[in-house]
Amino acid sequence: MRQVNVGVLGFGTVGTGVVRILLENNHLLKARVGAELNLKYVADIDTETDRGIRLAPGVLVNDAFKVVTDPDIDIVVEMIGGEGIAKELILKAIEGGKQVVTANKALIAGHGNTIARAAAENGVDFGYEASVGGCMPIIKSVRESLVGNRIHSMVGILNGTCNYILTRIAESGSTFAEALAEAQAEGFAEADPTLDVEGFDTAHKLAILNALAYGMEINLHDIYVEGISGIDPVDIAYAGEFGYKVKLLAIGKDNGDSVEARVHPTMIPFADPLSSVSGSLNAVSISADAVDRMMLYGRGAGMMPTGSAVVSDIVDITRNLLTGSVGRIPVLSYQPEAIHKIPILPVDAIHTHYYFRFAAVDQPGVLSKISGILGDNGISIRSVHQKGRRSEGAVPIVMLTHRAREAAVKRALKEIADLDIVSDLPVLIRIEDENGGE
Amino acid sequence: MRQVNVGVLGFGTVGTGVVRILLENNHLLKARVGAELNLKYVADIDTETDRGIRLAPGVLVNDAFKVVTDPDIDIVVEMIGGEGIAKELILKAIEGGKQVVTANKALIAGHGNTIARAAAENGVDFGYEASVGGCMPIIKSVRESLVGNRIHSMVGILNGTCNYILTRIAESGSTFAEALAEAQAEGFAEADPTLDVEGFDTAHKLAILNALAYGMEINLHDIYVEGISGIDPVDIAYAGEFGYKVKLLAIGKDNGDSVEARVHPTMIPFADPLSSVSGSLNAVSISADAVDRMMLYGRGAGMMPTGSAVVSDIVDITRNLLTGSVGRIPVLSYQPEAIHKIPILPVDAIHTHYYFRFAAVDQPGVLSKISGILGDNGISIRSVHQKGRRSEGAVPIVMLTHRAREAAVKRALKEIADLDIVSDLPVLIRIEDENGGE
Repeated sequence: MRQVNVGVLGFGTVGTGVVRILLENNHLLKARVGAELNLKYVADIDTETDRGIRLAPGVLVNDAFKVVTDPDIDIVVEMIGGEGIAKELILKAIEGGKQVVTANKALIAGHGNTIARAAAENGVDFGYEASVGGCMPIIKSVRESLVGNRIHSMVGILNGTCNYILTRIAESGSTFAEALAEAQAEGFAEADPTLDVEGFDTAHKLAILNALAYGMEINLHDIYVEGISGIDPVDIAYAGEFGYKVKLLAIGKDNGDSVEARVHPTMIPFADPLSSVSGSLNAVSISADAVDRMMLYGRGAGMMPTGSAVVSDIVDITRNLLTGSVGRIPVLSYQPEAIHKIPILPVDAIHTHYYFRFAAVDQPGVLSKISGILGDNGISIRSVHQKGRRSEGAVPIVMLTHRAREAAVKRALKEIADLDIVSDLPVLIRIEDENGGE
Repeated sequence: MRQVNVGVLGFGTVGTGVVRILLENNHLLKARVGAELNLKYVADIDTETDRGIRLAPGVLVNDAFKVVTDPDIDIVVEMIGGEGIAKELILKAIEGGKQVVTANKALIAGHGNTIARAAAENGVDFGYEASVGGCMPIIKSVRESLVGNRIHSMVGILNGTCNYILTRIAESGSTFAEALAEAQAEGFAEADPTLDVEGFDTAHKLAILNALAYGMEINLHDIYVEGISGIDPVDIAYAGEFGYKVKLLAIGKDNGDSVEARVHPTMIPFADPLSSVSGSLNAVSISADAVDRMMLYGRGAGMMPTGSAVVSDIVDITRNLLTGSVGRIPVLSYQPEAIHKIPILPVDAIHTHYYFRFAAVDQPGVLSKISGILGDNGISIRSVHQKGRRSEGAVPIVMLTHRAREAAVKRALKEIADLDIVSDLPVLIRIEDENGGE
């Protein structure tokens, strides 16, 4: 039986998951792939900690560069993370003609164009299914299953930490800080949760998906990113009254000569299957010309789900090695010469539906002034709701709009915020609702 | 640019979808695949009807055998359906060394082992993504994305006609006959709906999925199949009171030395994401050791969604042709020598939860007799509900059980049916509920 030698760099959570699958399901993999996936090295600076896995003598090493330059190694699996040493090791492996697999979304979002070019120049495969959506085969679906489709839009819940926190706030009415503490206690959030809760992790994933769907260079820089740390439970409660859930969404849309690429808390109708994706689960919904709408749903993180996606890449590449077909699918879904710089529409130029909440003085004429300013800015109101009275005299006024242009919305909100009769800054949450009217 | 010649056999609904995608998205396909997918022939006995597509002169022909034997044709796309001429054409194409793509689930469920062997012997690829779940990449997910996973179970809503009918009954309380008539009027059901509503179409798909997941020969014959034509709206209404929806499910489970393979109306909890798959949509949920649980969701039928899956196969095979890697993935997911006959557990041997409805005479001691018989047969009752009174003296008694063995359940129901105090045959609906107790 033919053998492919795998070297795993980084024996942390996901690295351990990959090693476990390769060892525990080795017979199953042989029966399916018809080859031996031989775990030749696992490299980590920590060679002492017991990860509960028995490795053969000589497999655990502390020098990742030794693995990357070992002539016997066919596939290098980078599980270190970050954009420093990981990038260096990946490029060295590629230059040495080795196939590479990673789950490192920050690296791909930041340097994916360079890495993809290096892979093409050196005639090697570069697999990164695990970088977006954990176990969900979202990259394979876009590159392979939807290959005949013009993709209209992708809407994803791609960060389990944020979805867990938003689910907890919706269920219990707790504040963001309380829900975050809970998420940390449950192991769903890091000690420093910035990358997750501020939306950057989601933006990394969106940058990758947009490139694959639209044939554009990876562009993290121009994505509009707004996290969930400013979310007030009251807006999630009001959303529920209107039939909406609040989710942190990655939204990628084809706009003809440009694309939309934005990450922000978003209201979606209960009838949207994404709205019932709760807790730490992830999901992506894709609209495209032939399939209409397709959705994937599953665990977006964790040792074994992410490990599963890494192993699927290892196997894809093994099959290419066995049949001499390395490079059969272009790394970024499109042929290198078909990849263009496609501009991302500035967020001020998007058109969508909006939810506003104003803290207004409880006196006659307030509503007329606010709606007058909205009307002057061409924003058409779908409904207005005055939500009870507060003792201090400020009452919350909630409005839902028809489709409006973001620049006009921001101008109107600024004018409204400047009114004497409005205390606090207005709250704005975008709504994705196909039935929300024009 | 390299060119691959495609011949489509059958210019019906799905055939038209495939042709539309190949022509309308030709530039997009070139940019992604780096090759020209040239539609050389479309064969149909009806060369007169206008399908709204302009084909180049000479493309539309009436002789499918001419296409299959044309030396220029690389990929034959069988869109005729049925097990007669379609099978003959496919085997002839394979024997001629041509690659084959089809959506013909009945043919694969019935003759897939033979076709897979023929493909392996002749060194050609055989693609059938479109045979299960329309646009959802379920076959790709099982063969490729989950390749490192031991699959525990697959639960699918795989027939849009049945799901539409069950959704309508649940929403409107209409009878099966009324909902079927509505489905036919809306184009979601055939004039002869037997294949769909009696569960056979779903069984075809389950036979394929079980083979791919478990490394067994395709075995349609031993699948337990029960359709939805006997469904009474009252049971769907009661299910709702207990927090369940009724869906026609395909259930495939690994039982160690055997597998479960059954198709029947099933109650699933509202919290299960499958329960919110409504109308003609399809979904499959897969439980496996590494991914935990993953779900795909989308259009399971129709011209363009099914066409999309066919085109994904055409592209996969084109990529294999371009890189000389035909056969890189075994047709039935496992290497031919690793495929075994794995027995399907007889339905009488399964253990699951049950819903019963009895029409009982309204007199003291009835409940005691019924529950006595259940207890004597080792069936533990989770809850009992007497649902109002009828004037004729018969009252519906509804029971939910803990996990029980089907053979014991059937024996008990027969004993209960033989009681004087029970009119009509008892109703039995199986429940899939992980939280339903042991």
